[in-house]
Amino acid sequence: MTSSLLIRNIRPMGGTSADILVEDGRIARIEPGIAAPADRVEEGGGRIAIPGLVEAHTHLDKSLMGMAWYRNEVGPRLLDKIENERDAKTRLGIEPARQSRRQALASVAQGTTHIRSHVDIDTVHGLSGLEGIMRTREELSNCVDIEIVAFPQSGMMIRPGTVELMQKALELGVEIVGGLDPAGIDRDPKGHLDAVFGLAQKYARPVDIHLHEPAELGAFSLEMIMERTRALGMQGKVAVSHAFCLGMTDVDYASRLIDELAELSIHILTTGPAARPSPPVARLRSAGVVVAGGNDGIRDTWSPYGNGDMLERAMFIGLRNNFRRDDELEAALDVCTHGGAKVMELEGYGLAPGCGADFVLVEGETPAEAVVTHRPRSLVVKRGRVVARGGVMEAGS
Amino acid sequence: MTSSLLIRNIRPMGGTSADILVEDGRIARIEPGIAAPADRVEEGGGRIAIPGLVEAHTHLDKSLMGMAWYRNEVGPRLLDKIENERDAKTRLGIEPARQSRRQALASVAQGTTHIRSHVDIDTVHGLSGLEGIMRTREELSNCVDIEIVAFPQSGMMIRPGTVELMQKALELGVEIVGGLDPAGIDRDPKGHLDAVFGLAQKYARPVDIHLHEPAELGAFSLEMIMERTRALGMQGKVAVSHAFCLGMTDVDYASRLIDELAELSIHILTTGPAARPSPPVARLRSAGVVVAGGNDGIRDTWSPYGNGDMLERAMFIGLRNNFRRDDELEAALDVCTHGGAKVMELEGYGLAPGCGADFVLVEGETPAEAVVTHRPRSLVVKRGRVVARGGVMEAGS
Repeated sequence: MTSSLLIRNIRPMGGTSADILVEDGRIARIEPGIAAPADRVEEGGGRIAIPGLVEAHTHLDKSLMGMAWYRNEVGPRLLDKIENERDAKTRLGIEPARQSRRQALASVAQGTTHIRSHVDIDTVHGLSGLEGIMRTREELSNCVDIEIVAFPQSGMMIRPGTVELMQKALELGVEIVGGLDPAGIDRDPKGHLDAVFGLAQKYARPVDIHLHEPAELGAFSLEMIMERTRALGMQGKVAVSHAFCLGMTDVDYASRLIDELAELSIHILTTGPAARPSPPVARLRSAGVVVAGGNDGIRDTWSPYGNGDMLERAMFIGLRNNFRRDDELEAALDVCTHGGAKVMELEGYGLAPGCGADFVLVEGETPAEAVVTHRPRSLVVKRGRVVARGGVMEAGS
Repeated sequence: MTSSLLIRNIRPMGGTSADILVEDGRIARIEPGIAAPADRVEEGGGRIAIPGLVEAHTHLDKSLMGMAWYRNEVGPRLLDKIENERDAKTRLGIEPARQSRRQALASVAQGTTHIRSHVDIDTVHGLSGLEGIMRTREELSNCVDIEIVAFPQSGMMIRPGTVELMQKALELGVEIVGGLDPAGIDRDPKGHLDAVFGLAQKYARPVDIHLHEPAELGAFSLEMIMERTRALGMQGKVAVSHAFCLGMTDVDYASRLIDELAELSIHILTTGPAARPSPPVARLRSAGVVVAGGNDGIRDTWSPYGNGDMLERAMFIGLRNNFRRDDELEAALDVCTHGGAKVMELEGYGLAPGCGADFVLVEGETPAEAVVTHRPRSLVVKRGRVVARGGVMEAGS
């Protein structure tokens, strides 16, 4: 492994030209005309350098990437999709280790350096998804950092034995306790949330809950999440994914919820969904709520869309939030970099001396143009090593 | 010019393999194993053939494509954007002939064979936009058919002299009478719509009105459009672009409007906007309303997004309408092909013997995969001639 790397002529966040010197996996210097010798020298060609993209919400265990096209004929209800998927895993042979590896590599080639992935935990497939992702995490440890959320996709209260499997997952090293739609799936918001927060307390882990429930129903569940966060002193340790309810038409109510989220340092993760009410990213950020971005499921039995590109995801978040100005597009990019890093509590993240050398060279005159056009990344650096070039993994990475 | 072209091994709409024989600019045969001689033979490699993509709503005169990145710092009101643009045309030197040519060529390279473009008509810039697009239309007549809508972007009632310019545009050969937001811009819905429909009657032309007005306000304007359509016997000759009001929360009201649109054969054009209420495409189609797709403005002073790709636009329309099933994605593709062809009243459009030889070879196992991945088009054929290959214009096209 090379211990020092010099990249000449890059523009940090689209600013004026500088060189980056990387030593021992960390950024040593960012300044014009660095004369220090280096084991390896790259020419940046004036491209924009941004910190590594952070995929803060996805499902590595269930993508169909690289498999035959899946003809989606699934019914309209949420339960149709959950049941179809549970069966399809066996029927189609969705092998979690193979599929998580494919998706993670596609993401890295597009500049993602950190991933938070949910993994299904249920009484049919047990911990097989988790074992697959853990294998991928180990195999790709030089290319990407993967954090895992134990996700009870099929419910906990309605499927006895699931809580015990969640416990096992946490004992095996899963970092985060997941949950979903306390009212919608388990039909028992108190039971579901007490189980989620009970596990979080017992294992001293953060929480990340999928909340698709709309409008006032979602707001009710969100209030219950906030009550528990406050009572248990879990400020800064709770994230809510999707949070469609924050896009509800009762703007005053949504506004009060947002202020309370800020007070409790509860984070929001969004995909910028076009077809659903969506958490208002600008309002959340100005209230002080950390917002992170994610691609969610990519090419799976739920949805045919997606390719793992977090720069394109910044565009989707921009489109959904009617971001047109350059400063707004830069905010969308911040959501998909620093926002994710805050949610994942990454230490030493950023494009500054002393930070881990995880960064990407992107194409465009400005960061806004890079988001809008999201052309193939010219260079991806992870822990000081070039892992991808021109959108393709570097040989041996 | 070659008079016959044989393409071997394509899959019409993703079906079983066939050959296409083109003679004198029309599709002569589509069947397996055509043995006829041809002046030129191409190998389709089993790719999917679809009819030419139809860009049914765009603004060729105002794109900034190929110019320096425009740093958007425009204010939030609609009027801010309109005034900023009117000034920017001169300030930035947005030359309509050059810019419309750039955008049209980018669209053709991505498989668009027909374009309906609005062109700004106002008392500051007069008919300069129109002259530019007319030049592009003539220069590119072998590559793409362009239909023009005279569009009073800055209002008619509030800018005396605009109606007279609209008349001149129609006398110069513009095919369609445009209009916009009768309440929102002119603050005079009766005055605005009487002028639009008056011009349509006088010159016997169809109408295409931008309607961004939301909810009940938009519904009021839509009712006034329907009243005039009925009274003047203009069934089948009126299109409404955007029609955000059809995505309003009063579903019963929206539903009644949709049924009346169907009865009057009024067409709806949509971009699948992520940040605005959106006409419900599936509901409209099942009611019998023709829905077409468009990219709207591409990389202009209004919005930084877009690249002219109508296959990607089909994906955006799918995302906005929560289309996940293969049949739904095929409907989104139909919107961006046959839907546009119906709105533009194209004769001989389609992928069948006797139709004009305007078609595209796309990548994917199925049409749904082609929409979702929208990889570069392998071949674009216009009037029987290969005009683009691998996403790039063919030399001499």
